[in-house]
Amino acid sequence: MNVGYKIVNDPIYGLIEIPSGIIFELIEHPIFQRLRRINQLGLSHYVYPGATHNRFNHSIGAMHLTIQAIEILKSKGVAITPEEAEGVIIAILLHDLGHGPFSHSLENQLLLVNHEFLSISLMEQLNDRFDGKLNLAIKIFTNVYHKKFLHQLVSGQLDMDRMDYLTRDSFFTGVQEGKVGYDRILKTLNVHNDKLVIEFKGIYSVEQFLNARRLMYWQVYLHKNVICSCEMLGQIIRRAKFLINKGEELPISNTLKFFLSQDLDKADLLNNKAQILNYFYCLDDSDILMAIKEFTNHSDFILSFLSTNLLERKLLKVVIKNKPIEIDFLKKVSDKVQEKYPTLSEEDLSYLVFEGKEANQAYNIRKEEIHIMLKDGSVRPISEWQEHGIHRIEIVKYFACYPKLAELD
Amino acid sequence: MNVGYKIVNDPIYGLIEIPSGIIFELIEHPIFQRLRRINQLGLSHYVYPGATHNRFNHSIGAMHLTIQAIEILKSKGVAITPEEAEGVIIAILLHDLGHGPFSHSLENQLLLVNHEFLSISLMEQLNDRFDGKLNLAIKIFTNVYHKKFLHQLVSGQLDMDRMDYLTRDSFFTGVQEGKVGYDRILKTLNVHNDKLVIEFKGIYSVEQFLNARRLMYWQVYLHKNVICSCEMLGQIIRRAKFLINKGEELPISNTLKFFLSQDLDKADLLNNKAQILNYFYCLDDSDILMAIKEFTNHSDFILSFLSTNLLERKLLKVVIKNKPIEIDFLKKVSDKVQEKYPTLSEEDLSYLVFEGKEANQAYNIRKEEIHIMLKDGSVRPISEWQEHGIHRIEIVKYFACYPKLAELD
Amino acid sequence: MNVGYKIVNDPIYGLIEIPSGIIFELIEHPIFQRLRRINQLGLSHYVYPGATHNRFNHSIGAMHLTIQAIEILKSKGVAITPEEAEGVIIAILLHDLGHGPFSHSLENQLLLVNHEFLSISLMEQLNDRFDGKLNLAIKIFTNVYHKKFLHQLVSGQLDMDRMDYLTRDSFFTGVQEGKVGYDRILKTLNVHNDKLVIEFKGIYSVEQFLNARRLMYWQVYLHKNVICSCEMLGQIIRRAKFLINKGEELPISNTLKFFLSQDLDKADLLNNKAQILNYFYCLDDSDILMAIKEFTNHSDFILSFLSTNLLERKLLKVVIKNKPIEIDFLKKVSDKVQEKYPTLSEEDLSYLVFEGKEANQAYNIRKEEIHIMLKDGSVRPISEWQEHGIHRIEIVKYFACYPKLAELD
Amino acid sequence: MNVGYKIVNDPIYGLIEIPSGIIFELIEHPIFQRLRRINQLGLSHYVYPGATHNRFNHSIGAMHLTIQAIEILKSKGVAITPEEAEGVIIAILLHDLGHGPFSHSLENQLLLVNHEFLSISLMEQLNDRFDGKLNLAIKIFTNVYHKKFLHQLVSGQLDMDRMDYLTRDSFFTGVQEGKVGYDRILKTLNVHNDKLVIEFKGIYSVEQFLNARRLMYWQVYLHKNVICSCEMLGQIIRRAKFLINKGEELPISNTLKFFLSQDLDKADLLNNKAQILNYFYCLDDSDILMAIKEFTNHSDFILSFLSTNLLERKLLKVVIKNKPIEIDFLKKVSDKVQEKYPTLSEEDLSYLVFEGKEANQAYNIRKEEIHIMLKDGSVRPISEWQEHGIHRIEIVKYFACYPKLAELD
Repeated sequence: MNVGYKIVNDPIYGLIEIPSGIIFELIEHPIFQRLRRINQLGLSHYVYPGATHNRFNHSIGAMHLTIQAIEILKSKGVAITPEEAEGVIIAILLHDLGHGPFSHSLENQLLLVNHEFLSISLMEQLNDRFDGKLNLAIKIFTNVYHKKFLHQLVSGQLDMDRMDYLTRDSFFTGVQEGKVGYDRILKTLNVHNDKLVIEFKGIYSVEQFLNARRLMYWQVYLHKNVICSCEMLGQIIRRAKFLINKGEELPISNTLKFFLSQDLDKADLLNNKAQILNYFYCLDDSDILMAIKEFTNHSDFILSFLSTNLLERKLLKVVIKNKPIEIDFLKKVSDKVQEKYPTLSEEDLSYLVFEGKEANQAYNIRKEEIHIMLKDGSVRPISEWQEHGIHRIEIVKYFACYPKLAELD
Repeated sequence: MNVGYKIVNDPIYGLIEIPSGIIFELIEHPIFQRLRRINQLGLSHYVYPGATHNRFNHSIGAMHLTIQAIEILKSKGVAITPEEAEGVIIAILLHDLGHGPFSHSLENQLLLVNHEFLSISLMEQLNDRFDGKLNLAIKIFTNVYHKKFLHQLVSGQLDMDRMDYLTRDSFFTGVQEGKVGYDRILKTLNVHNDKLVIEFKGIYSVEQFLNARRLMYWQVYLHKNVICSCEMLGQIIRRAKFLINKGEELPISNTLKFFLSQDLDKADLLNNKAQILNYFYCLDDSDILMAIKEFTNHSDFILSFLSTNLLERKLLKVVIKNKPIEIDFLKKVSDKVQEKYPTLSEEDLSYLVFEGKEANQAYNIRKEEIHIMLKDGSVRPISEWQEHGIHRIEIVKYFACYPKLAELD
Repeated sequence: MNVGYKIVNDPIYGLIEIPSGIIFELIEHPIFQRLRRINQLGLSHYVYPGATHNRFNHSIGAMHLTIQAIEILKSKGVAITPEEAEGVIIAILLHDLGHGPFSHSLENQLLLVNHEFLSISLMEQLNDRFDGKLNLAIKIFTNVYHKKFLHQLVSGQLDMDRMDYLTRDSFFTGVQEGKVGYDRILKTLNVHNDKLVIEFKGIYSVEQFLNARRLMYWQVYLHKNVICSCEMLGQIIRRAKFLINKGEELPISNTLKFFLSQDLDKADLLNNKAQILNYFYCLDDSDILMAIKEFTNHSDFILSFLSTNLLERKLLKVVIKNKPIEIDFLKKVSDKVQEKYPTLSEEDLSYLVFEGKEANQAYNIRKEEIHIMLKDGSVRPISEWQEHGIHRIEIVKYFACYPKLAELD
Repeated sequence: MNVGYKIVNDPIYGLIEIPSGIIFELIEHPIFQRLRRINQLGLSHYVYPGATHNRFNHSIGAMHLTIQAIEILKSKGVAITPEEAEGVIIAILLHDLGHGPFSHSLENQLLLVNHEFLSISLMEQLNDRFDGKLNLAIKIFTNVYHKKFLHQLVSGQLDMDRMDYLTRDSFFTGVQEGKVGYDRILKTLNVHNDKLVIEFKGIYSVEQFLNARRLMYWQVYLHKNVICSCEMLGQIIRRAKFLINKGEELPISNTLKFFLSQDLDKADLLNNKAQILNYFYCLDDSDILMAIKEFTNHSDFILSFLSTNLLERKLLKVVIKNKPIEIDFLKKVSDKVQEKYPTLSEEDLSYLVFEGKEANQAYNIRKEEIHIMLKDGSVRPISEWQEHGIHRIEIVKYFACYPKLAELD
């Protein structure tokens, strides 16, 4: 009378059962354990101190919801074989393997490859070590498997990734507005013509989910100080690459040096997979944190200025606007900064005074629509209900960052 | 070193402190204690079984939030004297005194007076007994006091009444989508030109609050089976009055008989205040519940049919539409019902087959707008932010109820 | 692709699935629906205002936990047939059918039969109507079924009844100290030699469960004002019976009159089952509440004094001691009360000045022990672990109640 | 009408207000911000993955509870001047400044100074920079201030440190059994003869608090795999020091090298305060994490074996007993390990096969007793209530760790 599973405590869902067999083995694998060292929300804990959770927590959570979703769909007569169930669970479990340090913060900067592609590469590597047992998971993840709704559970308008990250991020940040009724959404999942749909009684939960997601974008993911910390980190890395290119020796780990001393892109990854993935496996938040700490004493003013300020959470000033930042304004700011630090070149200034934009669209009907299944079994897109008025406008915000100077206030 | 307050446990806010003095005495007063016997959401527990909370719980909760709001406003330099603070706390504490059995379910049916007017009448009665100590509270409640923001705390777009009932109703129904970030809204309250405003950093919470409120309307307050139970209850009372008018003796309490045997309106209340309020004080959910139980055995078919079915939670069938119910449809249904119960007159049928409508508007800019205070101290209506797109459309739903008949399916 | 179940929202567990078939039909049955009208904790809401939940909520919750427990046991290889699963679910669902008004408050007073026996009687009645489909459930409930662990799920040291009521009562009262890690206890349930056991990794949760239960007894169930309200209610009923015996006509429902005008015991129930159960079905909190309200105007001083005070929550004074209340003290109090109300007879005084005791033992090893299953499969009673020191002392508290008199302070 | 405080979101308490002035400045100071880089529970997230919170979160939380405690005490008439309030708030805010990487895990190993002494040293350093404004805080922290109850709020049987860490650690680990009714304990705090006492109505909460604390020790802080990870980390550091002593160059940060290449104790700290504290300021989790990652490739077998296994969460086997581990058993294990790795010296083996013990006593009456204040104002130690039977036995557990070897199973 033994138990066939392990139990893990989760602050949100309580006790989570881990299926035995390959899923348990994958979780135990060093490549998955590495996710413990990747913070889920990068430096967002500078604004929401509770946001210390990592990609390991999120992946286990998404797995848990996926297992529940599968049980619910099966109980409604949706055909899902044990192999398919395992495939989709593995796909969601490993969907974030490819995240680098601080998750999205440095994506496309340490190497010119997005995290999904890296996830696939790592899944393929694991697939070799697990004798092809991840074949189906990879097919589902890359959406080449014929049952399309399985992919939608992993990546889609209502996937288990979003369901967990909204729930988890709102829990750890303490932002109540991002709470999502995942329980009801899961219970009202169904499949129609190979597509994931929501039964009518879940329509309010879907609406609330879309609103919560939109609010989380503006209140957390794109909070001006979150953007600012993230941008400062990006500038530090850019400067470090610049200095390395100039031939300077930086006090960083060999792992980080590997990525900063060359511009690796998809082609490189394909040509030199084993080596790059080995280095990638070794790369996590601690390489970056240590680098920043070491940089605080570096002789390069830009590098030490940004690193010291980021480490001590003395963020640059951020202005945020609904229209592009005026060039005149940026020019004026640059001039003031140069006045204060006369030795800085124009190139140097670009690390301290810079602009950018962020956009978010709560719901885009031209992309994948969310479909609602009525009691008579018919299916209609949620956009047809005016009373569940989903925001479709794309909101764009423009920002500029620059050192806090008395002269500028 | 004694404590100057009592503590009461609340499942939502934890330990609530009750100020000593008149507020404590008012809570101890039988007129306030009566609210323990008035369910907050009428028969909604037929759909959401956890919704067993009562007006006593809500009133204490709203008082608690008001005390917090006052502290926050005072800490921001808003001038509120101890007398004003006490006044507004008393006003919110007593704002629901005038609720009859099952709260809104029978409002305007047992007597043609809305609950606010009854609340005022009872507050005036208490004011007499408390030697005029409620003068200021009544002024604030009736919005004749010169500091208008105090009234807004009691009744307005962002009043402590709504803040508590949304929080409380979503908590007890288990409807996650209705949760409200009351904490942040309170913390961002401020006053500008004698009006309650929200500081900019609370704008997302306000948006989420308006959305949550709208969802609660459709998912709870106007849930079709909630409407149906409420309507059935209304028809039972209407029938009972009809029978009493015809001279029949009904097995009901003297209290209930007092209200059913005459059509009391505002004028009667003003003319005969003491007597009517004394009867009203004695009236609560138990009078109605006992009546329904007794009616199940009554010889009048309509009365016993509706009462038995309501008691046993065998609800009428409800259809709900976005446009008015077609007359043909109602006619067809009536005919079928009469076919089954041939002795029923057309009058009788109106108790079993009936229609109605419910409307809700999340936000009406023509009424009181919510104002946002920017960092520079200026104030603008929330409707100016397109990205916080508040729903302004009034949604109307039409419903019809009728007995479940095999012939009608 | 239809759903085979209904979903109900629960404030504690979230969405609860109701199995279709007989379980759904039983829940829909008027005898079960009646539990909506029986408050779970009687008048405890006088002390913990949030405690408005009813036996319906608790029964559904206990059913939910039982369904989970069965799934967990099955996943560990414990043999449970679908019929047995249904049986145990029905048994727990219906275990509280026999509760009268205000649950335990008037148990053995309205009729001399405990609630379990009434539950069995009502289950048997339902069994007749459901063509014997409750046979197995009744066997499990009465512990005559050969698989004893199934009965333990319904009634035992770690049954799903306790698991739900502690969780639910602490949730609604807001008493944090009563929270129980039911999740972990369920996950560590197992069966050994036909007995329910807990796997070692659940031992801390069991210890905490026993402590939480003990605290809930003293902090809620046996809180002095809870005892007092309950005793006042009991004295009111005793007085009403006394007056009826004397031939007085009381303004109460026929249902209540049926129970107050005779002393029904187990033998009566067996002899006259149909009638008594029919009356019992009609009896709920509202009969008692209405009676108390009517009694407030009764000419009998004792009846109106107790009823008015209970209705208005003006409780008698309670003293609580670790040793029996001294006779001298009671005598002195009685004298003072009689001095104030000179017309009262000694018999009369016994309704206003009385004593009693309450006892609770957290864990009694002479009764059923809780067994812990070690990793090697062996089983030992929890009392063997000194570090999980379970309280075994029976705590007895003695109380006396009497009117608040200035002379007595 | 400006706000005098900053607000920070906390996943547990919601919105926390940060007082303006020196407290805000201290929080902004780099020495305090460093606590963001010190995990609260070291490697406990290996067992409870949610436990990613850091000392920054805990310190802010403890500050929040202290502010509440002060308000409550003042409302009861306890004299606390604004300066004293600020002093005690600063004292609790900074009480954990002296924690090194992974909190307790490496305490006394990187330098022979406990974290309290380091906290004092850092507070003194800050005091210099803040022109003596921390004088009173330091007096309170070191218990030389004459109002002793202020120190008890910071460090005592019921201090705000424990109140927060139990609440926080149980929240993030998901261990329900450790939840504490801090709300009620705070509300029942009082002062008697300059000592912190609990009013009688809080006695159950105190009992539950002591039980919860005991359970957290065994279920979290002294969980066998938590002990094991912590011990492995300790052995890695011990080995690194050993190698450095032998003259080997290790790939670690200069900061870490500073601490590993010498045995710093209290005397050193006093002699060379500025330098040591500067190094200490730079030392956090990332130094250790990077070191472990680098060590995985080191040529020393012991160092790379332990580092690789710890990094990949392949923990040593742990046995735990209620009595000392038998020497024979350890000898046998050592032999087996040496058989497998024949080149290991006895010294080497001591890093792979080792034993230890952990002890915990829930309540020690010989230390500081918890005092309960009765309604009559008298005060008695909680140990006098047998029914609140506090565990006084000291529980000692002995453990041994060693590599998992097939030969040993």
